[in-house]
Amino acid sequence: MSKQKAIILLSGGLDSATALAIAKKQGYDCYSLSFNYGQRSQTELDAARKIATVNAVIEHKILDFNLGMFGGSALTDDEIEIPESLEEGIPVTYVPARNTIFLSLALGWAEVVDAKKIFLGVNSVDYSGYPDCRPEYIKAFQNMADLATKAGVEGHGVQIETPLIDLTKSEIIQQGIALGVDYGETVSCYQADGEGHACAICDSCRLRKKGFDDAGVEDPTRYQ
Amino acid sequence: MSKQKAIILLSGGLDSATALAIAKKQGYDCYSLSFNYGQRSQTELDAARKIATVNAVIEHKILDFNLGMFGGSALTDDEIEIPESLEEGIPVTYVPARNTIFLSLALGWAEVVDAKKIFLGVNSVDYSGYPDCRPEYIKAFQNMADLATKAGVEGHGVQIETPLIDLTKSEIIQQGIALGVDYGETVSCYQADGEGHACAICDSCRLRKKGFDDAGVEDPTRYQ
Repeated sequence: MSKQKAIILLSGGLDSATALAIAKKQGYDCYSLSFNYGQRSQTELDAARKIATVNAVIEHKILDFNLGMFGGSALTDDEIEIPESLEEGIPVTYVPARNTIFLSLALGWAEVVDAKKIFLGVNSVDYSGYPDCRPEYIKAFQNMADLATKAGVEGHGVQIETPLIDLTKSEIIQQGIALGVDYGETVSCYQADGEGHACAICDSCRLRKKGFDDAGVEDPTRYQ
Repeated sequence: MSKQKAIILLSGGLDSATALAIAKKQGYDCYSLSFNYGQRSQTELDAARKIATVNAVIEHKILDFNLGMFGGSALTDDEIEIPESLEEGIPVTYVPARNTIFLSLALGWAEVVDAKKIFLGVNSVDYSGYPDCRPEYIKAFQNMADLATKAGVEGHGVQIETPLIDLTKSEIIQQGIALGVDYGETVSCYQADGEGHACAICDSCRLRKKGFDDAGVEDPTRYQ
């Protein structure tokens, strides 16, 4: 019997690398999907490619589209500064409808290759700020997906898996280490340099560093 | 008081041109969005541009992304033939997750410009075949969108409007004619030539022709 397939949304960051390791451990044939959507940091795409190769995915695709043409986020709009401290409420690094767009594109690919799962590395640290990382959002997306697709209508639609959603950053890191994830390859920084060196001061760097500290694991991040 | 804004998903076809005319009639400042997603027929994008100009939209954007890289549809995959007769069930021209992807991208732009509505020209003729044209799908997308975005979380999220959903093709045409839509500018054909001349034999051409016949309106379509 051939193995079941899973699409993994792979950003090149710590969380999605862990989600891929979990999907692989669960025995899926993995198809990884990254997006070149106009984000400032292109090195995360290099990281995603490396992580896909190391994990021997069946296929890694990078879809190009310029989400920056809509503007409105510090991650795609050069006129909005990346903040240097954790903000209250929804941060300016929020990209409008990003997870909805990414999951929708994954849904399309899942239907074509007949994947049974889509793995998304959202987690509890993120969802305090981003609305599209919360469990109730994921549930609503699943409900919509069940009605949206030929496979869903036929009763064998794809399931969204969010194995990290209830974990803290340090728990994610501990789980990833146990699965052999090399976090030195991952890039979380919102403004990494061309070689993937992290800034150490943006929200994402701070959350990541705290995760390694809390996990009692040496931080393998390459800083500038 | 400034007018409210609406995003209109504009394919260049008959339905979306009518949806735009309805949004304009309702008094919205209109922002039209088209996609260059790897569809065979590029002339529909030219048609969309013309329709946007004629209707004096505030802004018309065309987002490029290659949905064809996933394959799986006769509309983006050259290896799947466009059928010459109406099919039973879900047709091969179905593009996996297309409306979900398009609505998700519109949702992102809506949030950035603070649009209150997204107009989508789905209708009852289409939804007999495409799962993502049915009212229950639209309702589920709305529910998901309310949870997905900063605006939704803050209680002023965008509303999806489908003014054609309960209309037949002939009713849509009659409504459009009353609003002054020039259907000679629209392209519905799945395989129109470079000048926008329709094939007259694909599903989309047949449905359109029947619509004009049933409406008792002369068919302005430019055929090959």
